[in-house]
Amino acid sequence: MPTNYELIKSFAQPYLSNAGNTPLADNTTASDVTSVSVSFLTNQKQIEAMLPPSRNLSIDGPPVVTVSTVYQGGLQWLAGYGYNLMLVILPVVHNGKNGKTIGGFLPVVWENMTEPILMGRELLGWPKIYADLPPARKLNDTWQTIATWHGFQFAEINVKNIHALTPAELQEREKSSKPNAGLISHKFILKTGAILETDADYLTISTNEGAKAATYREVLAGKADIRFIKGTWEQLPTMVHIVEKLADLEIKEVYDATIATYSGGSMGATIILE
Amino acid sequence: MPTNYELIKSFAQPYLSNAGNTPLADNTTASDVTSVSVSFLTNQKQIEAMLPPSRNLSIDGPPVVTVSTVYQGGLQWLAGYGYNLMLVILPVVHNGKNGKTIGGFLPVVWENMTEPILMGRELLGWPKIYADLPPARKLNDTWQTIATWHGFQFAEINVKNIHALTPAELQEREKSSKPNAGLISHKFILKTGAILETDADYLTISTNEGAKAATYREVLAGKADIRFIKGTWEQLPTMVHIVEKLADLEIKEVYDATIATYSGGSMGATIILE
Amino acid sequence: MPTNYELIKSFAQPYLSNAGNTPLADNTTASDVTSVSVSFLTNQKQIEAMLPPSRNLSIDGPPVVTVSTVYQGGLQWLAGYGYNLMLVILPVVHNGKNGKTIGGFLPVVWENMTEPILMGRELLGWPKIYADLPPARKLNDTWQTIATWHGFQFAEINVKNIHALTPAELQEREKSSKPNAGLISHKFILKTGAILETDADYLTISTNEGAKAATYREVLAGKADIRFIKGTWEQLPTMVHIVEKLADLEIKEVYDATIATYSGGSMGATIILE
Amino acid sequence: MPTNYELIKSFAQPYLSNAGNTPLADNTTASDVTSVSVSFLTNQKQIEAMLPPSRNLSIDGPPVVTVSTVYQGGLQWLAGYGYNLMLVILPVVHNGKNGKTIGGFLPVVWENMTEPILMGRELLGWPKIYADLPPARKLNDTWQTIATWHGFQFAEINVKNIHALTPAELQEREKSSKPNAGLISHKFILKTGAILETDADYLTISTNEGAKAATYREVLAGKADIRFIKGTWEQLPTMVHIVEKLADLEIKEVYDATIATYSGGSMGATIILE
Repeated sequence: MPTNYELIKSFAQPYLSNAGNTPLADNTTASDVTSVSVSFLTNQKQIEAMLPPSRNLSIDGPPVVTVSTVYQGGLQWLAGYGYNLMLVILPVVHNGKNGKTIGGFLPVVWENMTEPILMGRELLGWPKIYADLPPARKLNDTWQTIATWHGFQFAEINVKNIHALTPAELQEREKSSKPNAGLISHKFILKTGAILETDADYLTISTNEGAKAATYREVLAGKADIRFIKGTWEQLPTMVHIVEKLADLEIKEVYDATIATYSGGSMGATIILE
Repeated sequence: MPTNYELIKSFAQPYLSNAGNTPLADNTTASDVTSVSVSFLTNQKQIEAMLPPSRNLSIDGPPVVTVSTVYQGGLQWLAGYGYNLMLVILPVVHNGKNGKTIGGFLPVVWENMTEPILMGRELLGWPKIYADLPPARKLNDTWQTIATWHGFQFAEINVKNIHALTPAELQEREKSSKPNAGLISHKFILKTGAILETDADYLTISTNEGAKAATYREVLAGKADIRFIKGTWEQLPTMVHIVEKLADLEIKEVYDATIATYSGGSMGATIILE
Repeated sequence: MPTNYELIKSFAQPYLSNAGNTPLADNTTASDVTSVSVSFLTNQKQIEAMLPPSRNLSIDGPPVVTVSTVYQGGLQWLAGYGYNLMLVILPVVHNGKNGKTIGGFLPVVWENMTEPILMGRELLGWPKIYADLPPARKLNDTWQTIATWHGFQFAEINVKNIHALTPAELQEREKSSKPNAGLISHKFILKTGAILETDADYLTISTNEGAKAATYREVLAGKADIRFIKGTWEQLPTMVHIVEKLADLEIKEVYDATIATYSGGSMGATIILE
Repeated sequence: MPTNYELIKSFAQPYLSNAGNTPLADNTTASDVTSVSVSFLTNQKQIEAMLPPSRNLSIDGPPVVTVSTVYQGGLQWLAGYGYNLMLVILPVVHNGKNGKTIGGFLPVVWENMTEPILMGRELLGWPKIYADLPPARKLNDTWQTIATWHGFQFAEINVKNIHALTPAELQEREKSSKPNAGLISHKFILKTGAILETDADYLTISTNEGAKAATYREVLAGKADIRFIKGTWEQLPTMVHIVEKLADLEIKEVYDATIATYSGGSMGATIILE
């Protein structure tokens, strides 16, 4: 399909302007990244309801939700501009035709820039939508990250009592972390003019294959609290239903948050997960 | 597929939070719209190269490019928020299985808000990408509209010598305007992990079927100039190639611009054009 | 002081780039203005505490607070750009050396653009500070205006049951409105390095002298509610104390709101009120 | 003046909400700062014309202009929010009543947040005005910083061939740097209603007295180019005259740029310079 490939490079595929010239790993290498991640134990039934049905997906292990906010600069494909993300990740296992895959399922991802949202939805199948994600604030001993939409703040993470992790603690963490094949999404795009038919309706997995490893500058840990705040339809017309489900999640226990600063990491390949 | 329909209402389809509750025409009714439109005669070969090949599309009549900037408030599906657009429209005829369709082809559309960009790309197939589109400026006798991306201005329209159109002139315009079945786009979405396969690769047409007519407050005409300004890859990393093609277009003659203020109009149905 | 006058035109007086070339009234003429104004009866003591002491100012008549949000485009001195305001106005009388002056005192004004904030504070003495002020939203039968700061919404006005005022009603309003010599502010600028001395510490009044009258397109009235929302110091570090005082105001009765659309009006002269 | 001091804490002095509770040095301590500084040799007469006349100021030593862009997070007085600056600095000596003072004169400073602009102009006397200052971009071996206003880019610095400075090189730099008593500004505020009289018209100096020293993470050097780009009045209505003067400066030689990342530094006391 060389003709179409030329075409897509010509118009309206903003993420392909550079395609072919630069390897993916180079294109998505970020510099100056800060990530703030917090996990909490919730009610299994509530997060099971966030998985697409009939897709061989189920919650794997304790029902622990992870929310990560990521502030990154220096992306090659954006000519050095950066953008921020907030990801919600559920622990899942997929029973596919090639066996079991353990990974993190993304019910929703917020970003504060249109171009990577389009790239994510259309190339990777990630469920990205827009939010304002101002840089994490460091105030005295507290780090705070928030997400807002048109002046309504719908999410907030606070991390206190921050201390650096020792190399031994870091090693301990890595040992105890589960195997993880990547981030799993449900690519879902409706067919035009036909509300019950789809152009795309399949799972994808973003792996570490071919990814560059990041160089860590600092890894901190701290005591966290997290909350999602329900809005009205007038406040969040395009995502009132999403935030409501997250705000309704039972929080049984919040685990220590991790604040990491690093650079040089990149994405790996994303493929269909069957 | 009712299960999936429930699903898409649950997560990451920001434009569907209200689906089913409100008719499309109501959802997309805008209030307080100002549009500034200008057309120019160009080189036929240059705009033919902007049509997707092997799609039964050809330029229809004189090669006249229309650029419309639209500033709209009060959209129901955005709970009363508005956003702005800049559309590039080419005069085409489509020779399809149901005969000839005369319409306007959209090689690219810019908008300044992520949610309608996603809705447009995924539901309608429109080639929407992001730009900053500040409100049209009225300065002495000149209206100016510009489009910028991260501080680089890539398009500018100036309209001078503005005068109101008389009812007779308006009637004359309407009479002389060609029949137009709607706006035609090429929906093109790549399959994940397979750069030469697609999830969607077809034409769509956004018609007036079911649309509400707008109430016009004022229609002005004036003498226009228009230009697209090439940037470097560093300035426009995701659209340098798009702006370059538009900036390269020969401008043989610029026709009078139209500035209209209206409210109450809405979109009609969008369907696949075969 | 011609030397300094040259200087101030040279650097860092952004509002004077055009000074001398254009009359004030032309410079501040706005096009396409929408204003949403609501008044409420409050506790006299609470608003007395908002007047600067020892300045011969006192509340005049019933203690009625007016909050006006103004959305304006097309300012000459900003080359056609516009900006938005939210004003808080208290009914006062000033007993000065030239007799009594009845006017509206401004304890605080929010705007969403730095340049007019600087111009207002330094040339006019207005107590302008920054807020995000998105355009008024019209949704079904409700108009809503909000003010936010870094994702925290601290003010909201809703107007419902909207109907156009008849010419008779408009006339009635004008008859019953009090005489008003202008908007009174307390210009207050500290001397550098000396926290208890001042460069400026006097009252100013912005009059209608030399102002251009606006042309009204529409005047609507409706039933209003208004609220200010207290934030924490973390949410509103630079104005937590201001919003708190407004949020604490007793609301005894809210009067009908007015929504006006107009263009062509300008400011009059601002002088010191002694 | 305790009454007024209470007043200024009450309304419209956004930078004083916290006054008295926290020492200045703590309030202005920034975390995560990146600064990109470049100097160039210019024509002495051109920068002499940027000094306020009759103020005992003259250019000191070679006519070297320094332009610094500073990206800072984590300010205490902004509850952990940060903002960016671009400073223009001229090497001057002041012959005052207490003898000679060698420092850097600020003809203009741009910032991207209103609150510190107000604080700077009114408390410190700095000539701050607004610009969009996106974070420095790192792309391959180039760092780029730009300044824009409403979509018009008026300044750009590029730094290439970047290498870390050795401790020896750093020491060498410090040794060869001139003594510097601080940053000198001309506080200039007009009296309301009286275009040729002033509320403030004096020099100030921002010293290091009481300032906290920063902790440097990295100091890089590289080969730089810098340019200011003239706009039309329509593009830069409030600063066309400022940018024009900077764009007109002869650039005889550009010296190596310095890119520093640090945290923990703060401002010292600012006083009147007589």
